[in-house]
Order: sequence, then structure tokens, then C-alpha cells
Amino acid sequence: MKTRIKLYLTTVCALLLISTSLYAQKVIKQKPLKIAEQGAFSAGGIMVKSEGSFDPLKPWNVPQGGQTRHGDHADVFYQIPVKAKKNAMVFLHGYGQSRRSWQTTADGREGFSNLFLRNGYGIYLVDQPGRGAAGQTTKPGQITATPDDQTWFTQFRIGQYPNFYDGVQFPKDSLTLSKFFRMMTPNTGSVDEATIVNAMSAVFDQSGDGILFTHSAGGAPGWKTAIKNEHVKAIVAYEPGGFAFPEGEVPSGNRGGRGIPLEDFKKLTKIPIVIYFGDFIPMEESTAASLNFWRNVLATARQWVKVVNAHGGDATVVHLPEIGIKGNTHFPMSDLNSKEVADVLSKWLKEKGLDR
Amino acid sequence: MKTRIKLYLTTVCALLLISTSLYAQKVIKQKPLKIAEQGAFSAGGIMVKSEGSFDPLKPWNVPQGGQTRHGDHADVFYQIPVKAKKNAMVFLHGYGQSRRSWQTTADGREGFSNLFLRNGYGIYLVDQPGRGAAGQTTKPGQITATPDDQTWFTQFRIGQYPNFYDGVQFPKDSLTLSKFFRMMTPNTGSVDEATIVNAMSAVFDQSGDGILFTHSAGGAPGWKTAIKNEHVKAIVAYEPGGFAFPEGEVPSGNRGGRGIPLEDFKKLTKIPIVIYFGDFIPMEESTAASLNFWRNVLATARQWVKVVNAHGGDATVVHLPEIGIKGNTHFPMSDLNSKEVADVLSKWLKEKGLDR
Repeated sequence: MKTRIKLYLTTVCALLLISTSLYAQKVIKQKPLKIAEQGAFSAGGIMVKSEGSFDPLKPWNVPQGGQTRHGDHADVFYQIPVKAKKNAMVFLHGYGQSRRSWQTTADGREGFSNLFLRNGYGIYLVDQPGRGAAGQTTKPGQITATPDDQTWFTQFRIGQYPNFYDGVQFPKDSLTLSKFFRMMTPNTGSVDEATIVNAMSAVFDQSGDGILFTHSAGGAPGWKTAIKNEHVKAIVAYEPGGFAFPEGEVPSGNRGGRGIPLEDFKKLTKIPIVIYFGDFIPMEESTAASLNFWRNVLATARQWVKVVNAHGGDATVVHLPEIGIKGNTHFPMSDLNSKEVADVLSKWLKEKGLDR
Repeated sequence: MKTRIKLYLTTVCALLLISTSLYAQKVIKQKPLKIAEQGAFSAGGIMVKSEGSFDPLKPWNVPQGGQTRHGDHADVFYQIPVKAKKNAMVFLHGYGQSRRSWQTTADGREGFSNLFLRNGYGIYLVDQPGRGAAGQTTKPGQITATPDDQTWFTQFRIGQYPNFYDGVQFPKDSLTLSKFFRMMTPNTGSVDEATIVNAMSAVFDQSGDGILFTHSAGGAPGWKTAIKNEHVKAIVAYEPGGFAFPEGEVPSGNRGGRGIPLEDFKKLTKIPIVIYFGDFIPMEESTAASLNFWRNVLATARQWVKVVNAHGGDATVVHLPEIGIKGNTHFPMSDLNSKEVADVLSKWLKEKGLDR
């Protein structure tokens, strides 16, 4: 009897200890972030003016001319940790996205920017002109609200809708998928690449020296931002959708390659550049249009890196499955294995001396 | 001679001490923020579906039916400080604005949300459906990009453009004014009040008990959010543009008063409510349309508070100039005296036991 009571008590105590320890683990899951400074600002942009004169006594009269509109700027949210590293990180999103791409994941985990903020980098999260909080543009926009979630599910290589790819690093519950779709946000006006580049350069005027992160359609203006602003000390591009080749060296039949003056191009050979691609990009021509698209982009990226390095640069393409990291979609930075993807990047940053 | 050298040395030392102390003051201007958790999420919203079927092999074919669109949600950025108080603060912006209204000031000072984060409140900064990062709507939108900065300068009581009001708490340099205009961001689609209320209620489902902050056009959906969701434990409204009266008690000739069922209205009598108005609102009819607008809104607010209190509620209107706080525009929370405006609120929060 005594032995049984003792066993019982021992078991209860053990369970109590385990549950207390689990509880403690849950509560102390992360150290607090220590932020020396945080805030928001607009960067770049232009001002347009209408004909006529403005009557302040009747501000709502239509037509009411003689007015300005400030637009086409970027909007930036930034956080500087205590004891920040020398280089900041500046994050530019892709098509149909905003800074939310980097800030969080669809299933509510910490985004890439949070992971690196914890590692001591100042972070600058950008909404490009005509997107998110930078919605004030100088040219009109029409938003159709046409249902297109399934197009993006497929184009972003989560799967061939309604099927998820086998082993995809994306949660399969419908709530997460809904939250992923809700991270999309439309263009609020017509904005060209030069406008984005000007605004991004103005962001770097504020941030000072930093590492430029681009995603997808952010890739093309990203290269030009680095050409324009010497504060860009490195580029980390996740699945960039466009490439700037020297004029005369644009490969034929490529996807997303365009020519720029050689003198401009050479600036891209002065900084380290790494490009990452996720999984499910076939080696051979596919029956799926979205997969051929990415197959061509990856091929162009490989050609581009060769040209950069032939001109004395330091550029690398990493196809994640080739280094054993499998299942990534078009959003490796927010996939389920985002910490592993971040670790790969951290090693590269260290190799290049960018982590100080 | 000795005395003169001594005096000289004393002066040098004194100057050194003063400059060191000034330097120290500049560097240690703020204690670091200690953030236990931060992130972003969407809340609420609906899903619409198009007719037809989707072919994943040709995701870009047009028309491509059988697709969904998730939209009409709110987008929320939140930060929870270490040792957070019981009540969170949830911030809803006004017309043409986003969470940036609360997050920062045009001249780059800390916004209201930062000030209260430092005081230990968890903060939830909302972009309402069809604004900022919550740009994905289910109904189309047309953005005209018509120049209208001067209309807003005047309507927001910075002055009668091009003149600033005497003593206005707004910086008069053109850069700050440019940055103020760049904080505006348009509607990305047609969104009605019920959609905003549904999304705001979903925000409170996530935040739990909290104090709802509204500004301007956010006022009207704010009252209805409090009626819909019991997690709203108080309302702080800066210059709300609309009021919900019990049906049959809507005063005639008012600006922005609408009738709602008495049973709903009574829920607003169960929580403390404070409403603040800034300066430059005339007592008498004005020749300026914008000033008559705000004169009528303030008058309606005073009528509304009487009705709330007659039904047993606890509502107050504070016209800031009447308590000696002068020069505020339509944005008291980001004006030059925003810390003074925050202090007034802190006292109210303490009085109502909301600061624990």
C-alpha cells in the first residue's frame, strides 16, 4: 500500500514537473526584443499640380483646381535594435504583396524581418509606390476585384490548385490559406519601374548602408536601386522575376532579362549578390504554364550570374533543393521551414562579412 | 594671472561638463522598448467566388473562372510589451488615412501608439478593409488621383490654405507638410460601414479586452464595434465624424447623427467614453465651409454625450482649448503637442481604472 501511494505521488510530482516545465517553455518561448528606435516615414515620390485656383472657403467645391497631390513615394516602417549591426536590412516585396511578405507568415509565425531583427539588424520594411500604406499615387488606378486566388496559389507554386505539391512547406489548413490570400493587396495606381527605383533609393538615403532584400517582381527594381545608390552593400533576392544584363549581352529566349548600359551593370559587380529559388521547378519543359515560367526564370538567373561573375562580380544562385532544402514555394522566407532558409542566408552573410 | 587661468580652466571644465551632459541627453533620449511579441494578422473579411472552372495548367488564361477572392478584412500590426497591462489599445484611423495616423507624426516624432506602448499597453494598429495593407476588397474601386492636398489641409484645420492658423500645433516647413500629405492613402474598393464593423469586431476577438481609439470617420464604425463586441472596454474618440443615437432621439439639423435600435445604443452606456476636439472650431456660423462642418460635428457630439448620459452612460466631450490646450488641428494625436494631449488622456484612463 505504502509503495503504491509513493508511486502515485512520484507520478503526480513527475507530471507536475513536466507540465510546469512545458508551461515555462511556452511562456519563455522568445527573449523580448529590445528596440532602441522604431517609426515610419515616406521616402521619395513626386508632386503634381492642377490648373486653376483654390478657394479655402469652399474646399469641397468641384472642380476645385490649384491643388497639389504628393504621391509615388515608398512607405517605410523601421525598427532599430539595441546595439544594431553596421548594415541595416531593407526589404522590398513582390507583385500583389506589401511589407507583410517579410513581416509575418500566413500562419502567424515570426517573419523574416523579425528573425533578423533578433539577430541585431536594423530593419526597414518597404511598401513600394502604389502599394499598401504608400497608396497615394499621381496616376489613376482601376481595381477590378476579379477573383484570382487560385491563379496565385498555382503561380506561387503552393501546388496546382486544388492540389498541394507533395511535401510542400506550406500549411494545408484552409484558415492559413485564407490568411495567405488576404496578404495580397492591389496596385492603387499606375507606377513604373523608375518610380519604384527612385523611391527605393530614397529609402537607402534614410537607412544608410544596408543589405537589400527583394522578392519576385521586386527583383528588377532591386538591381537598379543598387546601381543608383551606393548605400546598397549587398543584394539578397528570393526568386527575382527580372534581370538587368549589359546591353548586347541579353541572352535570347530568356524570361525577364533586359539590357542596361555596361557602365551601370558594372556597379552590380562591386557588391555580393545571392539569389535563392525554391522547389518544384522542373528541369524539363512542363505541361503546366506556371512551372515553365519559373523554369525559364531560374535558367535566366543562372545565365545572369555567369555574366555578373564574368565581369568580375560575386553573384551566386542557390537552388534550395540542390542543397537539400526541399518543399519551398515562391515564398521561401515565409514557408514552414523559414528558419532553415534564414540560417542558410546567415551563413552567406557571415562569409561575406556582412554580419558585423 | 593665476586667478585668470583658474577662471579660464573652470569655464572650460564647466563647458565640457555641460556639453557632455547635453550629449548624454541626446543619446539616452529614450529607454529601449521591450517587446515580448510583435506581428501582423488579417481579421474578418469575406470570400467571393466566380462562376466557371479553374484550369491549373493555364492559370493565366482569361477569362479564368471558378476562383475565389478573399477580401474586406482588416489588417493589423501589433506589439505586446513585456509586462503588458490588462487592456490592449486598438487604433482605427479616419478617412483617407491608415494606421500611420497613430504610428508616427509627419515630422517623424513618436506616434501615439508608441507613447502608450512605452506606458505598457499592448497596441493593435488597424488598416480598415480597403485601406493600406488591407487593400484586397471584394468590390471594385476607381482611384482618380485628383490633386486635393489643399482641400485636406483646410478640412483638417491646419489652416485656410495657404495660410496656417495662428498658433497651430503643426510644423510650418514644407517637408513636414509634404510628409503629412504622403500619409494619405485611398480606398481600394467600395466598403460599407457594416464591413468595417465586422472586421473591427474580429480584431477585438484577437486582441481581447481593449480600449478602442477612433479618429474622424473611424468614429461611426467605432460605436458599432463596441455595440457588437464586448471586448471593447472603453472608447477614446478624436474628432469622431458620426454618432449613433437611439432611433427617435436623433436631433434635427445635426451633422453625422444616425438612429440605431435603443437596445443596441444602451450597450454604449456600459463603457466609459471620451471624445476630444481640437482648436479653431468657431462658436458662431463661419464664412468657411470647413469650419461650419466641424462646428456642427462638435455640437452633435455634445448632444450625443447628453443622450448617452441620460440613458445612464459615462461619456464626456473635451474641447481641448477649453482646458487650456490650444492650437490643435483635426489630428491632436500627432500635433506638436501630442505628448500633452496623451497626458490628458492618461489622466482619464487612470480615473476610469483602465490603466492597470
